[in-house]
Amino acid sequence: MIRFYNGRVLRFGGGMRVTQDEVWTEGGEIRYVGETPETLPAFDRQIDLKGDLLLPGFKNAHTHTAMTFLRSYADDMPLQDWLYKQVFPHEAKLTPDMVYTFTRLGILEYLSSGITASFDMYVKNDAYAAANIDSGFRTVICSGLNNFDADPENIEREYLKFNALHELVSYQLGIHAEYTTGMERMRYAVELAHKYKAPCYAHLCETKAEVQDCIERCGMTPPQLLDSIGFFDYGGGGFHCVWMSREDIALFARRKLWAVTNPCSNLKLASGIAPLDELAAAGVPLAIGTDGAASNNALDFFREMYLASTLQKVTREDAAAGGADRVLEMACVGGARAIGLRDCDDIAPGKRADLTVLNLRRPNMQPLHNILRNIVYAGSKENVRLTMVNGRVLYEDGEFFIGEEPEKLYEQANTACRRCFS
Amino acid sequence: MIRFYNGRVLRFGGGMRVTQDEVWTEGGEIRYVGETPETLPAFDRQIDLKGDLLLPGFKNAHTHTAMTFLRSYADDMPLQDWLYKQVFPHEAKLTPDMVYTFTRLGILEYLSSGITASFDMYVKNDAYAAANIDSGFRTVICSGLNNFDADPENIEREYLKFNALHELVSYQLGIHAEYTTGMERMRYAVELAHKYKAPCYAHLCETKAEVQDCIERCGMTPPQLLDSIGFFDYGGGGFHCVWMSREDIALFARRKLWAVTNPCSNLKLASGIAPLDELAAAGVPLAIGTDGAASNNALDFFREMYLASTLQKVTREDAAAGGADRVLEMACVGGARAIGLRDCDDIAPGKRADLTVLNLRRPNMQPLHNILRNIVYAGSKENVRLTMVNGRVLYEDGEFFIGEEPEKLYEQANTACRRCFS
Repeated sequence: MIRFYNGRVLRFGGGMRVTQDEVWTEGGEIRYVGETPETLPAFDRQIDLKGDLLLPGFKNAHTHTAMTFLRSYADDMPLQDWLYKQVFPHEAKLTPDMVYTFTRLGILEYLSSGITASFDMYVKNDAYAAANIDSGFRTVICSGLNNFDADPENIEREYLKFNALHELVSYQLGIHAEYTTGMERMRYAVELAHKYKAPCYAHLCETKAEVQDCIERCGMTPPQLLDSIGFFDYGGGGFHCVWMSREDIALFARRKLWAVTNPCSNLKLASGIAPLDELAAAGVPLAIGTDGAASNNALDFFREMYLASTLQKVTREDAAAGGADRVLEMACVGGARAIGLRDCDDIAPGKRADLTVLNLRRPNMQPLHNILRNIVYAGSKENVRLTMVNGRVLYEDGEFFIGEEPEKLYEQANTACRRCFS
Repeated sequence: MIRFYNGRVLRFGGGMRVTQDEVWTEGGEIRYVGETPETLPAFDRQIDLKGDLLLPGFKNAHTHTAMTFLRSYADDMPLQDWLYKQVFPHEAKLTPDMVYTFTRLGILEYLSSGITASFDMYVKNDAYAAANIDSGFRTVICSGLNNFDADPENIEREYLKFNALHELVSYQLGIHAEYTTGMERMRYAVELAHKYKAPCYAHLCETKAEVQDCIERCGMTPPQLLDSIGFFDYGGGGFHCVWMSREDIALFARRKLWAVTNPCSNLKLASGIAPLDELAAAGVPLAIGTDGAASNNALDFFREMYLASTLQKVTREDAAAGGADRVLEMACVGGARAIGLRDCDDIAPGKRADLTVLNLRRPNMQPLHNILRNIVYAGSKENVRLTMVNGRVLYEDGEFFIGEEPEKLYEQANTACRRCFS
């Protein structure tokens, strides 16, 4: 058993609040949250929080983790050029070994940012899953069915395989996007969603051009098109959700579909700013993702949270918009529920021990008028003291414990890049 | 003498480039930049860069450092309410001791972000200067003349005093803003500017309402109003510069006035997004500032640099806008020149030893396709390995060397807050 004591705890169930509880974990689970009892059991390790904050780890609800290999490679170009001229041609050269290495590099970055789970859509899922399991990191794979897949039926095999493989891995159904996936393949995804009563996810409404093209082709927006074929009959959601019409927002609210926002990626590719306040006001559940390093270029949840709030202020010309508390809830709770990790959404007995400790004894967290606003408005990776996934400490005081030295991974990554770009 | 070796150096003179030089400093000065010679002199300390990047420190060209006391205190309200209802009433309670403490807290945060100098407009300048000198930090004070000052002629006494006080401190002339400073006082600032042939600075064009009010009152925009009374006859510049007309931009370009951008503060207060690409295209020299912690709420140059680039992309709907190289030059070089620190703008013999080492052996800096874009698009405070001001290491590996323990400063800051808000 591991004991966290002498600090603060951010709890969500029963109302978002900071308590002075202590927290015990055993195996991968949270066992106790409450006052210090008179007699203590034996612990394997006792962690003195020194007043720091323990919170449910951030859930990165939209990622392409292995895209670390394209960080700062193809910057400063619009999404369609970036995707078709830079991303797809180089992705075609990726081997499973490369995906394994680039994924582990991304996991290091997640841990340094207090992220404890990802929702990942990419290629070579066997290597991807192995990289997560070997690192001790939690991930939900999302199938990214599209027209380039040689064998669309592979997603059903993957659905069954990865949902039974390991406690750190699960799998959800999805397509890359309606503009990269023909109607027949989209209908196949819907068939599986119906067969398994499973939610379905897709990139949608990321750029204005994407929405306009879809309307020209089918007379409907991407959310309406997908809904018209039953894609969302068992829930799910969309990634980006920047250019949502009033009808799209109503559809997402009615069906309780998750809108996963990616503010940094949307800035960098000049896609736009998602209307999070309108979405929240309509009752659409919200989560946050970093997207991949190729379009971000960081995997830094503090930057995402800051922008999920402040971009609302500037676009609505209202400094009261984009409340900080909602953003923290999106990061810790919303993300977990959006991707099916319902046991990772709080600090309470029986929940998974996916936890982050934020160091409040850094200058950017002082004075302590309001800890939660300090985190959203001033937090940074320098505040991440510890990241625990499934009860194991994978990051602490700047050091990584994922079964491989970072320097070796950097060397492997740079070597793989040379092969990939030669 | 201190030797930095076995790494990379970002140099600007003769074209922005990364070299493999080594760098020696002696006292407060850079003595040698070049290849490793056959025989080495004796050094007091040799720092193995291990491949990391040495660069001229970031210059924070617009600050109100002691406003750390308002961090996360008065969030989520528009600029005028925020300024008149929350900021001014609490500032009135500040004592010199409080300014000293809150300034040292801000300096800690600057150092953790690789910032080596500030351009600060605030109150109680004696205490402010002492906090900088005692910490070993470099600052340029800017007078913030306004209608609340009991004795406007104090700025001339301060100009003479602080420009002769200490090598780490200098002083420039400025007014808070045309909307807080009556014409008589503005003319007095101009008189001093003419007497000392000195540049002059002011907050300007921060909000749409400010510009509209000024036009209604005087038939001119704030830059035009100031220029019409000779305010810019010896140069200077403006803070924020969000709502600049085409004529304002042409005026700034013609007179080579510095536009200091504050992207985070402008988002948080919903003020707007400065047209940096238009300003740069017109030839306006650019610098970056964090503004105060009350409106930001962090003092984090990585966030400012990221947004100085990416907000241009999204507002211009052009992913090629807001180039990363220009942003780094604004941060390291532009800022120094904007505030009169012409010896702090490069790594070259004879320049001041105001240097930052960025750790490239962190996951967010890998792979190494493009180091400079990695910094602007993915950098974070976690990458700041060392910050040196005037030849002294003030921050290294997360620890501060400013003559006081951070924990003691936090305690003093929280105690002072309780007095200030009681």
